[in-house]
Amino acid sequence: MTAGSTTLDKPLLFSPLARSLPATVPFVGPEALERRFGVHFKARLGANESVFGPSPKAVAAMAEAAAKSWAYGDPEQFELKAALAGHLGVKAANITVGEGIDGLFGLLLQVATSSGDRVLSSKGAYPTFAYHVAGHGALLDTVPYRDARPAIGQDIDALVETARRTRPKLLYVSNPDNPTGSWVAKDLIEQLIADVPEETIIVLDEAYSDLAPAAALPDISLVRPNLLRFRTFSKAYGMAGVRVGYAIGEADTVRQFDKVRNHFGVSRIAQAGAMAALSDSGHLSSTISRIVAARDRLSEIALEAGLVPLPSATNFVAIDCGRDGDFARALLAAILQEGVFIRMPGIAPLDRMIRVTVGTDEDLALFAAALHTSLAQLGR
Amino acid sequence: MTAGSTTLDKPLLFSPLARSLPATVPFVGPEALERRFGVHFKARLGANESVFGPSPKAVAAMAEAAAKSWAYGDPEQFELKAALAGHLGVKAANITVGEGIDGLFGLLLQVATSSGDRVLSSKGAYPTFAYHVAGHGALLDTVPYRDARPAIGQDIDALVETARRTRPKLLYVSNPDNPTGSWVAKDLIEQLIADVPEETIIVLDEAYSDLAPAAALPDISLVRPNLLRFRTFSKAYGMAGVRVGYAIGEADTVRQFDKVRNHFGVSRIAQAGAMAALSDSGHLSSTISRIVAARDRLSEIALEAGLVPLPSATNFVAIDCGRDGDFARALLAAILQEGVFIRMPGIAPLDRMIRVTVGTDEDLALFAAALHTSLAQLGR
Repeated sequence: MTAGSTTLDKPLLFSPLARSLPATVPFVGPEALERRFGVHFKARLGANESVFGPSPKAVAAMAEAAAKSWAYGDPEQFELKAALAGHLGVKAANITVGEGIDGLFGLLLQVATSSGDRVLSSKGAYPTFAYHVAGHGALLDTVPYRDARPAIGQDIDALVETARRTRPKLLYVSNPDNPTGSWVAKDLIEQLIADVPEETIIVLDEAYSDLAPAAALPDISLVRPNLLRFRTFSKAYGMAGVRVGYAIGEADTVRQFDKVRNHFGVSRIAQAGAMAALSDSGHLSSTISRIVAARDRLSEIALEAGLVPLPSATNFVAIDCGRDGDFARALLAAILQEGVFIRMPGIAPLDRMIRVTVGTDEDLALFAAALHTSLAQLGR
Repeated sequence: MTAGSTTLDKPLLFSPLARSLPATVPFVGPEALERRFGVHFKARLGANESVFGPSPKAVAAMAEAAAKSWAYGDPEQFELKAALAGHLGVKAANITVGEGIDGLFGLLLQVATSSGDRVLSSKGAYPTFAYHVAGHGALLDTVPYRDARPAIGQDIDALVETARRTRPKLLYVSNPDNPTGSWVAKDLIEQLIADVPEETIIVLDEAYSDLAPAAALPDISLVRPNLLRFRTFSKAYGMAGVRVGYAIGEADTVRQFDKVRNHFGVSRIAQAGAMAALSDSGHLSSTISRIVAARDRLSEIALEAGLVPLPSATNFVAIDCGRDGDFARALLAAILQEGVFIRMPGIAPLDRMIRVTVGTDEDLALFAAALHTSLAQLGR
């Protein structure tokens, strides 16, 4: 579990691929950090969760489902898919539901790649995607982020150009993007979809779609055999701990997941909660308002501290600390020690930023104080 | 989703392995059967769930966790593993937790096998294991069940003998066994563990261990690098719809799962529920008593109908219908039409049986009536 731990593998028991992998997961949880550093986090602003919580209707539906959870959930997720289809304006056959987008990524690698196949993403993009690429023996090519201070974002042109040259099995692109919070106009995404080789599956990660400007999202009617759009209840819906993600695509493409998925994996409670959450548009819109206000406040806090907040279309703000990765890492460590959980990207040029999820007024005040103290400690 | 459906695969988009697989999952859920046949099931006795339900403490803990489920669950499952370790008398490092045993089987295939590797089980054993074998491109060899009427069970000697000859990467054996309900003495399992090649991982499925006689279970201190014991909260704990399973083994063996697992996959709600369930031993023992009594009643119902109930160490009874697979399938279809959900194994010689999960007195009365009517329809 420890990052970078070495393992005395059993050469005879596990596959050559498994023996080559580290026994580590992409994210160390805040609970593990608390145990490791002996701190208690007063504010939890590192995992892009929604402190504003799930819909009370979803909470009630999950509590009710808990009492009935002696029974397996519907492996076809019939009602949830119907509700999602109605919500999105697609057919149920265009949707596959899984244990979070993370779970779906693992399955996608399983059905789309063979060992040694090439996959493409931006360098420093979502680590869990890269984790599943490695776990299935595929090879990850990357394109650097476009670093035009203060903006920083995926280099869509370079992704397309590289894909046309290397013809990868999968091309990962997120919009809005994590960890930068930036977004690109839908025209650019549509151009990418048109220009990428048709044998490349476009993995369009739209985890933050509910928070994105309309100008970022291609119309839902844009369906191609090689396009899968991934969305989730973890972000704006405030249900990260429930584990419901889904992919939207052409029916024949979506059906591939049925070949390998953990068919009872989306729990009875998760299905009930997601359906109730979908029905509570009032909670969603009030959450979005709170996220937008908190994002503005976070940007102010960064500016007050002499740092540069990047524009964000998500529930977090990437803050450019203006110096190198070592400085940002030292700042992160100091803030953690102050009892505020945040994260930062690990790879240059992204590693000059810290990434702070929005929170309540109290959370943000705790962050502001921790930032102030930590910068002072570092001589700023 | 439909069993046996054909798919117009995209030759260029998905892997050769995926293109060779049917878009079907191992079990059609009762909800799907209701939709398909236009019936409403008055009794749900087909999925080896526990109608006696989860512990009220677990239900309360899950309801409480639902309200906090804006936050991801602990990806290290630290507290749950500690609780399990205490319960079992092992170390936390000897446990890996996943989205049901089903989820862990998928991960095991991922880390233990390469495409074309051989795997061994009994013919007609747990279909979800075979599903994950196929999904990872491994090849399943099988040994027939030992058919000594009225008893029917896995042929342990033949499994060992075959494993010594074919040296498979995995050997699947369940004790107690599904779908027969039979069990073998722990001496036989210990002998199997001693005799199987040391490069073969023994997949000992103990989903029904909480219902098994002590004589069936090797001591928990029996640890080998090539032994993994799988257990679950889905059966005696009545939490099938929650999705918590775990594997017990040597620390280095168990750690392999950390290389590929969906690290946030066991939800916050599931972790809280499982811990609370573990703490309520009173509910567990009263559930076991109710299961045993209902099992006895089910056997009486079978005998009253002139059929032969097999001895069971599980929460279901396999009933030998005394004729061939066609007769059992016709009987199953008639019972489903009567509004009672049960299942049956698909492969001879097991397919002369129907498999009925225990239920409440009312459930069992509904089954008895449906059985009576259905046998009369079939001219018995």
